Amino acid sequence: MQNPDKPTITLQAVATVHHDVPDDEVSSRRRDIIAEVRVLPRFADGLLGIEAYSHLIILFWMHGAAAGTEPLQLHPRGNPALPLTGVFASRGRSHPNPVGLAVVDLVERRGNSLLVRRLDAWSGTPVIDIKPYDYYDSYDQVRLPAWLQARQG
Amino acid sequence: MQNPDKPTITLQAVATVHHDVPDDEVSSRRRDIIAEVRVLPRFADGLLGIEAYSHLIILFWMHGAAAGTEPLQLHPRGNPALPLTGVFASRGRSHPNPVGLAVVDLVERRGNSLLVRRLDAWSGTPVIDIKPYDYYDSYDQVRLPAWLQARQG
Repeated sequence: MQNPDKPTITLQAVATVHHDVPDDEVSSRRRDIIAEVRVLPRFADGLLGIEAYSHLIILFWMHGAAAGTEPLQLHPRGNPALPLTGVFASRGRSHPNPVGLAVVDLVERRGNSLLVRRLDAWSGTPVIDIKPYDYYDSYDQVRLPAWLQARQG
Repeated sequence: MQNPDKPTITLQAVATVHHDVPDDEVSSRRRDIIAEVRVLPRFADGLLGIEAYSHLIILFWMHGAAAGTEPLQLHPRGNPALPLTGVFASRGRSHPNPVGLAVVDLVERRGNSLLVRRLDAWSGTPVIDIKPYDYYDSYDQVRLPAWLQARQG
């Protein structure tokens, strides 16, 4: 945080995502992909006890995103029929900091690797954090915009 | 990502947390605190449409944490009666990248600010991302370790 007017924050990768699905198929196939989250050896001690959880939150760096060059308002999914929406009101890739977030099923821990389902990250993606999913992350009474309700209803 | 063996990732703050609760009371009072997430003017266009959501995910930088100097295994809450646990298997502050995550209730949008409940971030904390909470973030069948079940059961 050198300059308080424009502070910068530096992170390091703690793991990397591996699977054999092409980038452009990851999003649509996320429910079926078993991805390997391979933790770097120097951070592997941080996994102790993780197999007791059924779900994890994976934060990852969307290294393919063009950070800072995208507009702050977009039509979701590039569909002009959907209302213009701010990036903080959508889960697209073009956030000012392209940090992806996925709640995943922990299928198995295998040594320094976690096998997970529902991770919509491209193979090669750096992971910046792994957190256990807890009761307080779960809300079943959720209100969404009409255009998003229509998609999922 | 200059060095593939030890890549670094640089982020910028998009907002700052404001409230008048002392740091050491934030965690216990998170359900009652109404915090202001004040978005920097240059990112305010990214809020368009956010008031349609009931819940948000706030990612923040725990700037008070001693990143990289903490052990990778700890007794949760500093309680030696609880099993030694890896940092990726707990939600404490001492992750290699001290990125905090909170699912919050969106109480009100007021211009460039979001008033939210359940944000356990200290006043002054830089926010690195704001995401809407969607149905696919919600899991009601969650398995946790016995020590954590005991706390919440």
